[in-house]
Amino acid sequence: MEGTAGKVIKCRAAVAWEAGKPLVVQEVEVAPPQAMEVRLKILYTSLCHTDVYFWEAKGQTPVFPRILGHEAAGIVESVGEGVTELAPGDHVLPVFTGECKECAHCKSEESNMCELLRINPDRKVMIGDGQTRFSVNGQPIYHFLGTSTFSEYTVVHAGCVAKINPQAPLDKVCVLSCGFCTGFGATVNVAKPKKGSTVAIFGLGAVGLAAAEGARVAGASRIIGVDLNPDRFETAKKFGCTEFVNPREHTKPVQEVLAEMTNGGVDRAVECTGNINAMIQALECVHDGWGVAVLVGVPHKDAEFKTHPIHFLNEKTLKGTFYGNYKPRTDLPAVVEQYMAGELELEKFITHNVTFSEINTAFELMLKGQSIRCIIHMDG
Amino acid sequence: MEGTAGKVIKCRAAVAWEAGKPLVVQEVEVAPPQAMEVRLKILYTSLCHTDVYFWEAKGQTPVFPRILGHEAAGIVESVGEGVTELAPGDHVLPVFTGECKECAHCKSEESNMCELLRINPDRKVMIGDGQTRFSVNGQPIYHFLGTSTFSEYTVVHAGCVAKINPQAPLDKVCVLSCGFCTGFGATVNVAKPKKGSTVAIFGLGAVGLAAAEGARVAGASRIIGVDLNPDRFETAKKFGCTEFVNPREHTKPVQEVLAEMTNGGVDRAVECTGNINAMIQALECVHDGWGVAVLVGVPHKDAEFKTHPIHFLNEKTLKGTFYGNYKPRTDLPAVVEQYMAGELELEKFITHNVTFSEINTAFELMLKGQSIRCIIHMDG
Repeated sequence: MEGTAGKVIKCRAAVAWEAGKPLVVQEVEVAPPQAMEVRLKILYTSLCHTDVYFWEAKGQTPVFPRILGHEAAGIVESVGEGVTELAPGDHVLPVFTGECKECAHCKSEESNMCELLRINPDRKVMIGDGQTRFSVNGQPIYHFLGTSTFSEYTVVHAGCVAKINPQAPLDKVCVLSCGFCTGFGATVNVAKPKKGSTVAIFGLGAVGLAAAEGARVAGASRIIGVDLNPDRFETAKKFGCTEFVNPREHTKPVQEVLAEMTNGGVDRAVECTGNINAMIQALECVHDGWGVAVLVGVPHKDAEFKTHPIHFLNEKTLKGTFYGNYKPRTDLPAVVEQYMAGELELEKFITHNVTFSEINTAFELMLKGQSIRCIIHMDG
Repeated sequence: MEGTAGKVIKCRAAVAWEAGKPLVVQEVEVAPPQAMEVRLKILYTSLCHTDVYFWEAKGQTPVFPRILGHEAAGIVESVGEGVTELAPGDHVLPVFTGECKECAHCKSEESNMCELLRINPDRKVMIGDGQTRFSVNGQPIYHFLGTSTFSEYTVVHAGCVAKINPQAPLDKVCVLSCGFCTGFGATVNVAKPKKGSTVAIFGLGAVGLAAAEGARVAGASRIIGVDLNPDRFETAKKFGCTEFVNPREHTKPVQEVLAEMTNGGVDRAVECTGNINAMIQALECVHDGWGVAVLVGVPHKDAEFKTHPIHFLNEKTLKGTFYGNYKPRTDLPAVVEQYMAGELELEKFITHNVTFSEINTAFELMLKGQSIRCIIHMDG
């Protein structure tokens, strides 16, 4: 692979030219990595709702043409100036948020919200020089979340790359770069349910299922899934859910239904929908004295969280989390090892596999709600 | 003292006959303790805003005649049936909330909100038989917060009594039964600032000063007092405050002023006013990634906490606390020992001393904002 270092690579990428229109798999040019950047050969990428959200671009300032994709696994092809911790051939997970290891957040044990490399969906160029590394016939193609993994080769900041065990199967661990860690970490790193406790999970999409999996691994004895779509309940059982509540089947508010089921409230609640009402319900449904609610879902920009402060005075705790509080470079290698040791069941999340040329099928499956994760094999 | 066991005791009490009218120090009859109750000889009691609040009885269903008072220290005179952990002669602090040691809250490491004996300002009788132990010429006089310490003798549930080191000076440690522990515990048990961190304290009354003292003892390097009354700033320096913000002196919202002073936000905030806007400011002024806001002040019953959920998603934590998360019987003896070891400076809180016959003076001092704590000596 080193024969390509320092040169422009021509390869296939799936370019989003317009909001909501099928991606076009076509040849693009990928410039060499500049200072503190690395160029990755992507082997597997998966599709996440966030890709679909920015592809639909509803209510946003649209950024096109753009290469989407942020959940992936690959191998370092070449590194730019100043990159010392990564070398060609390293197996890696690119991540939509980074870890510079220099800022106050990176130096804090409590935060993973790196000042330099924190997620920024509006950013469409590399932070080093404000340029793109992708082009088609000289026309710049924009980046997405600093990763743009819907390309056989991509350029990312070295601070957004976790080096992992080269034995790890990349077609499985690629899901760790977003959805799985977001939900699983929300439970195990933030909500921290005790063995034998009761946990409510709001929203049983991929993130919610990963949050349920976290509760299962933590030893929760009751895991109550809350979702408006009862079709999700059967699948959720595989992820540890023991009971379900469909708010549409009750006239009482969900928080009251949950309190009645649990003698006063659940021990922990993890909110994975982004719906403001579900966020409020998550706080209000936890038990006074010790209940902890954790917000994961991204709220609408005009959303307002409203509650009576007595919930806090009654010793409930409300927290939020970003990427499950994992620091990408520091923590991800250990999560890969957990999977290698058989502690995490990533296979359950992978419901479909398609070739790169079929990438639009992955979008269709997600829009129809048929997939949890669809792995896109870049070699096909 | 045992000569009085099992008999009605006639003694002096300060009876509140009407809302807002001076208390009347007069003879009352105090019945013997019933099952799981103890009768205490109160030696020192102090006045807290909560006493004044229920004496003024504004916006409440008034409960009179009543014996107020809940911050006190005394000695067990006699015990009722079934009381095994307390005996006549024990030095004790009665507390407005209790610890049955049997309920889910008492068994949880995280909660101090005992199901059986949790504070209930509406309760005016003993929980065992629904009767009062106080009377004047056969007329029942109501209890307050299960303590009614404005009496030379009072009857309380054994679960609301902390047995302490008999060497401890009762005229000092009496302040531990409410205000000091509420503020100090909010900081050291809940906000848990690290050494060298920055802490904002909203409200510099007795509870806020105790919260500041907690930050000082925890080794915070900057303690920023926020209060609308600048007269409080000089005193607050003695409790560790290093800087002050008077919201009235700024056109910007307080949370922005604090963010500018601290490079993005304080590490911890403790809200001790009960004002809903201060509560919201306390959350919004903490640093993203690791900030923790703790609510202590009791909100208005119609108050609504409103904020954008992004504060939580940005990894801020919002908690509340009740009595500084101390379990009265389990934890108070150790706080007394901390004082005995010179770690806590309770003397700073005690600005005035009066005799029992001068109890109305204590109310006047508090209403004028001249006292932090006024100790009432029952023998005078």
